[in-house]
Amino acid sequence: MARLSYQVIGTMLQALADYGRTPEGGVTRYSFTDEDAKARELVIKWMKQCDMSVRIDQAGNIIGRYGSEDGPAVAMGSHIDSVPNGGIFDGPLGVTIALAVVKKMHELGIKPKIPLEVIVFSDEEGARFGGGLFGSKVMTGILEEQTISRTDANGISAAQALRASGHDPENLDQAKRDPSELKAYLEVHIEQAHVLESNETGVGIVKGIAGPVHFLAEFSGRADHAGATPMTMRKDALLGACEAALAAEEIASRAGDTTVATVGKMEVSPGATNVIAGKALISFDIRDINLTDREWAVMEVKQELQEIAKKRDLGLDIIELSSVPPVQLNSNLVHLCETTAAELGIKTLTMISGAAHDAMNMTLLTDVVMLFVRSKDGLSHCPEEYSYPDDIEDAANLLYEVVMKLSNG
Amino acid sequence: MARLSYQVIGTMLQALADYGRTPEGGVTRYSFTDEDAKARELVIKWMKQCDMSVRIDQAGNIIGRYGSEDGPAVAMGSHIDSVPNGGIFDGPLGVTIALAVVKKMHELGIKPKIPLEVIVFSDEEGARFGGGLFGSKVMTGILEEQTISRTDANGISAAQALRASGHDPENLDQAKRDPSELKAYLEVHIEQAHVLESNETGVGIVKGIAGPVHFLAEFSGRADHAGATPMTMRKDALLGACEAALAAEEIASRAGDTTVATVGKMEVSPGATNVIAGKALISFDIRDINLTDREWAVMEVKQELQEIAKKRDLGLDIIELSSVPPVQLNSNLVHLCETTAAELGIKTLTMISGAAHDAMNMTLLTDVVMLFVRSKDGLSHCPEEYSYPDDIEDAANLLYEVVMKLSNG
Repeated sequence: MARLSYQVIGTMLQALADYGRTPEGGVTRYSFTDEDAKARELVIKWMKQCDMSVRIDQAGNIIGRYGSEDGPAVAMGSHIDSVPNGGIFDGPLGVTIALAVVKKMHELGIKPKIPLEVIVFSDEEGARFGGGLFGSKVMTGILEEQTISRTDANGISAAQALRASGHDPENLDQAKRDPSELKAYLEVHIEQAHVLESNETGVGIVKGIAGPVHFLAEFSGRADHAGATPMTMRKDALLGACEAALAAEEIASRAGDTTVATVGKMEVSPGATNVIAGKALISFDIRDINLTDREWAVMEVKQELQEIAKKRDLGLDIIELSSVPPVQLNSNLVHLCETTAAELGIKTLTMISGAAHDAMNMTLLTDVVMLFVRSKDGLSHCPEEYSYPDDIEDAANLLYEVVMKLSNG
Repeated sequence: MARLSYQVIGTMLQALADYGRTPEGGVTRYSFTDEDAKARELVIKWMKQCDMSVRIDQAGNIIGRYGSEDGPAVAMGSHIDSVPNGGIFDGPLGVTIALAVVKKMHELGIKPKIPLEVIVFSDEEGARFGGGLFGSKVMTGILEEQTISRTDANGISAAQALRASGHDPENLDQAKRDPSELKAYLEVHIEQAHVLESNETGVGIVKGIAGPVHFLAEFSGRADHAGATPMTMRKDALLGACEAALAAEEIASRAGDTTVATVGKMEVSPGATNVIAGKALISFDIRDINLTDREWAVMEVKQELQEIAKKRDLGLDIIELSSVPPVQLNSNLVHLCETTAAELGIKTLTMISGAAHDAMNMTLLTDVVMLFVRSKDGLSHCPEEYSYPDDIEDAANLLYEVVMKLSNG
């Protein structure tokens, strides 16, 4: 059996990290910038070294193809853009493992019956213009119209940046693909959390991606003097918000096994030590792979917000932001990954992804599965982000064997 | 019996409000500014019209004296500086009522056996340099050394501002007074809260001033991905802070009748919808006129902070800011006010002050009592701050009769 070694992947990861490296050892590489362009050139060079054909669509997605130009492909991929001062693994790991898989086949002279693709999606993080998952949204035809009007910190719009990089924002629909072009999509990504580490497991097989519901709640009370106002005469907006945040935690714990709810933001006004808060704004992020459990949790939280407001005589505004449905990945592919891992003696954990990935959108086109690689200390989006060579090697070999089965079976 | 009418006081209040009036109908009049200087000139003119002698000490306190220059005086007073865009009553009400009392005696040709003083304390609000209660701290010899080095938004230090106004910051100790110079100090002030309004009472007799304890608590957790981190694997600093704020409310309610605890500030980091809070900083303001109850509440809150941190596996830093002891006002003077109010048929409520006032420091020199005037809707430090003419008249007549008894009895 062919063995992929970490060496090849690690060398590519370090080479990509040279473009946009920060003093802290992280990387800042926004889409459609000079750093991004150089990193993209490098990926294209690697693709060509494996005799892949390369095309770039109007959204800037790079599609490298190995084997026949005709018929549906088994695609792998991820992204190479980053958040500000992010890690060097988030995104590039999935791209470089995919390239290593093709490289190994190329070295061994294997011509797959079904062609392979390596897709580098543009602007996955959305760090420059907001949004995110840009390339896969265009490829699947679900991009929101307003996205390309959004501007970066310098007032440059996404449309302008696309044009400057040689793409055509007026004709993004040309980048939309047909389901007939793909047989499967497989994406490797770092986990970005603690689940694999807690389970002492290096590789996760992702069976679903939790969709987030985002909304804000603003409690309005009365900004009274902290010393002069007895406890019984207060309308304290901050305390209402605190009860709401704790209620969300309790409701999520009581909902499904996979329900999570987070209040990550609290803005208090006037926000002074000696003034009772007149206003408190909190954000809610509620997710689950199980839509029923998620909707139950959202409903319970909103009901609790009303009760808290009533009990404390506070005003309450709920501001809806977004609701993304959860996505089930392909159970046959999940099973194929599980059995292949067992054959290879690789310990895996079948799990869900709480974070969104391009793979989520690709379910609109084809069968999808993801592999997760353990994140040291659960860290991501920071220079300390780290994946162990052994885990990377395991994920690469699992991906290789699964892709071999799908493309040659 | 002589009756003071609102007219005189209202006219003076409006005249003072002309200096620093804001478009919203409030007033911004920081200490040692042009507006302040003009307002001070006006007060001095009014004093002189009543045949008062006027002197200004090195801290800028104005001391007007009526009657003999020798022997201890019955003093009244308050301040005329304001917070930014504050109300026109906070401070000036106490000064103008005191002036109205002297004016009435002067009109009636009453020469008090014991001389009267009207003191206008400088920089009570501390809005320009921070701190506050400047004039009374200097007069009682408790000013913190660093205070005069503090700078305003333009980088001008309090010492420079004092010098520019003709005072001598090097010789502030010359402004310190001896207890033998005073027989009593009486201050009228707006309530700044809802207690009088809730009790449908226009005038409060203040028997004590609650001292605040201020400290910060910073919880440190782990800034994990809101989607990818199961509820059981979180170290959510915001939730720790929320529990702490609610615990403070519960503990204050369970402590003494007069204990209040407030978390007015919460700062969350990173503060993003989809990131679990890694850090949350909250402020505590705990007050009581009863020192034992206050200390019990502070101890309970701090113990609870430790327990929350332990339970949630969070780091905890407690940062001490300040601790001002509560002050009991003079019970004989409180009783005198109560009986005099009954004689005059004025409904009063004997209460405590949760806010600090110059009167608090004056207890170091002499016997002190305060009168509160109902605040419409409990509002203060804003243009909407309002006191009813009837309440002002009641407070003025009560003060007049009490001062008559103290100075002629």
